[in-house]
Amino acid sequence: MHKETLKDIGEKELINRLRKFMPENQVTDDCASIKTKNDNLLINNDSLVENVHFNDTTICPQDLGWKAVVSNFSDLLSSGSKKTIGITISLILPSKTQWVWVEELYKGINEALKEYGGVILGGDCSNGNEKIISITAFGIQGKLELRRNACKPGDIILTTGIHGLSKLGFIIRSKINFENNVSLNERLISKSIKRFCRPQIYPNFLKNLLKTQSNKKIKRIGCTDSSDGLFQAIQDLAIASNCKAILNYEKIPKDKYWPKGDKWDEYYFFGGEDYELVFSLPKKWAKNLSKIDENINEIGYFDNGEPSIEFKDNKKDALLKNTPFKHF
Amino acid sequence: MHKETLKDIGEKELINRLRKFMPENQVTDDCASIKTKNDNLLINNDSLVENVHFNDTTICPQDLGWKAVVSNFSDLLSSGSKKTIGITISLILPSKTQWVWVEELYKGINEALKEYGGVILGGDCSNGNEKIISITAFGIQGKLELRRNACKPGDIILTTGIHGLSKLGFIIRSKINFENNVSLNERLISKSIKRFCRPQIYPNFLKNLLKTQSNKKIKRIGCTDSSDGLFQAIQDLAIASNCKAILNYEKIPKDKYWPKGDKWDEYYFFGGEDYELVFSLPKKWAKNLSKIDENINEIGYFDNGEPSIEFKDNKKDALLKNTPFKHF
Repeated sequence: MHKETLKDIGEKELINRLRKFMPENQVTDDCASIKTKNDNLLINNDSLVENVHFNDTTICPQDLGWKAVVSNFSDLLSSGSKKTIGITISLILPSKTQWVWVEELYKGINEALKEYGGVILGGDCSNGNEKIISITAFGIQGKLELRRNACKPGDIILTTGIHGLSKLGFIIRSKINFENNVSLNERLISKSIKRFCRPQIYPNFLKNLLKTQSNKKIKRIGCTDSSDGLFQAIQDLAIASNCKAILNYEKIPKDKYWPKGDKWDEYYFFGGEDYELVFSLPKKWAKNLSKIDENINEIGYFDNGEPSIEFKDNKKDALLKNTPFKHF
Repeated sequence: MHKETLKDIGEKELINRLRKFMPENQVTDDCASIKTKNDNLLINNDSLVENVHFNDTTICPQDLGWKAVVSNFSDLLSSGSKKTIGITISLILPSKTQWVWVEELYKGINEALKEYGGVILGGDCSNGNEKIISITAFGIQGKLELRRNACKPGDIILTTGIHGLSKLGFIIRSKINFENNVSLNERLISKSIKRFCRPQIYPNFLKNLLKTQSNKKIKRIGCTDSSDGLFQAIQDLAIASNCKAILNYEKIPKDKYWPKGDKWDEYYFFGGEDYELVFSLPKKWAKNLSKIDENINEIGYFDNGEPSIEFKDNKKDALLKNTPFKHF
């Protein structure tokens, strides 16, 4: 008899099945949380596996260290962390790994900590066949709880920055050939490589959110990050919040040199690792916020209905048939 | 030019080098800690790598889940955790892994949580070539800080339980042949397999420590666990506390069916994964404690001198020439 494997069931179903082992009040979100008497602690763990999430051809260890921290801090921020306390680092490395590789990795880690706050709290190192960097990051929950399941019908969907750049950076670094040998603008190339190797997060995001808050009673905001791509982020919000996302293709901001065509839409919507924030707000709040932060754009709205994504005027529906990136 | 690898420098030197990336006040101990306004949080991460720390021949997934939790909780306890809050689980699994394997693993994890307290706070799952279970566990620091660097010359060295059993369990499960085909007592066999597959910890240890405290001013106690073997534990204490350990071979408690011979001494002192506590106390306190807990034995004392281990009356000095288990 063939026994069901993880490949058979897929990542989403795996997560659903594992959820039944958790207490009911512990919602699976970007972060876990621990309530202490004064502050609520936010905890996030991300593991980067060689040849799954990175390889030595496309990214140097210093950039990898930076990125490993940022991917964790992005999850903390998208849960509403007002301060990053620090990280623990669990390394698994083949014994043939060069010391200089580890040293460079730690340099990148410390650069990110210097930029965004926090210290190395501890860690351990084991031997293994492939390199794995597993970082657990700790932050303090701010006033607003940002959660995947807090979107409401009528909310405006917003995003910071632009998407697809990291995917393009990865493709360039992997020396994969483009369709029709499209020639890329030099500034787009360097911007994409920078996004892939040294992604940024937005420490001012929460301050601006609080500053523009139209209704002080609201304590929970729908939010996640685009680490698995813009589409996956919106899908996660729609499923967790049980509502339908309507996107306005024309309003979705792209780099001015971003080429046109279906392939490039795919990179944009499914690329991942841009670490932009994707969130939803009541109309007035959304307007106030996008006015003071030109990096934030309204790209659609949530409506009543089965969890799903639609484009306004049925444009680009072909895109929706694509399957998002699968981890298994 | 040959570039220095992790194999060249070894685990201890690697840890020393990584320490320089950490803030000075953040001592590398069994656990990391975060100070909050009321409680201090203890954090521990342990990663189990397939074919390094476990394999499917010697341990079933349910036992592995139990053991993964216990190895973390043992580190929390040996730092003085008075309560375990919970864990986050980061799994890396090949896509061919069967779902039933994951389900069994989680069953074992939840059995350990039911026994020792705490819930699953969150987790993630990635694809990789080998199975890796990385658990981060959270506890609350109790009144007494148990730390590797808090042993003092004159302190008595004590240990809970007996050592070597887990190693013997592993050898039996691996079907490795014994020297001279020694015949083992049946009760020792089942006890050893149980220790290897379902190690226990001592939740009452801290209560008994506080109950027998002879000098209430003492807030810090030298302690670690024997996850890497009794010798490694004592060596870690000696190095971190900068003093010399003198062991009394005759006083070291063994299972009554434990065979005699150098090989068996090696299993006993270097075996590892017994998760016993190895600690030091002022004389009076040590006497009080070992009186009320028959599971605790005095095995030697700390003296002034370079960090090292000696046997009283120069017995068993040959043992000291052995190199402890190396991770790289």
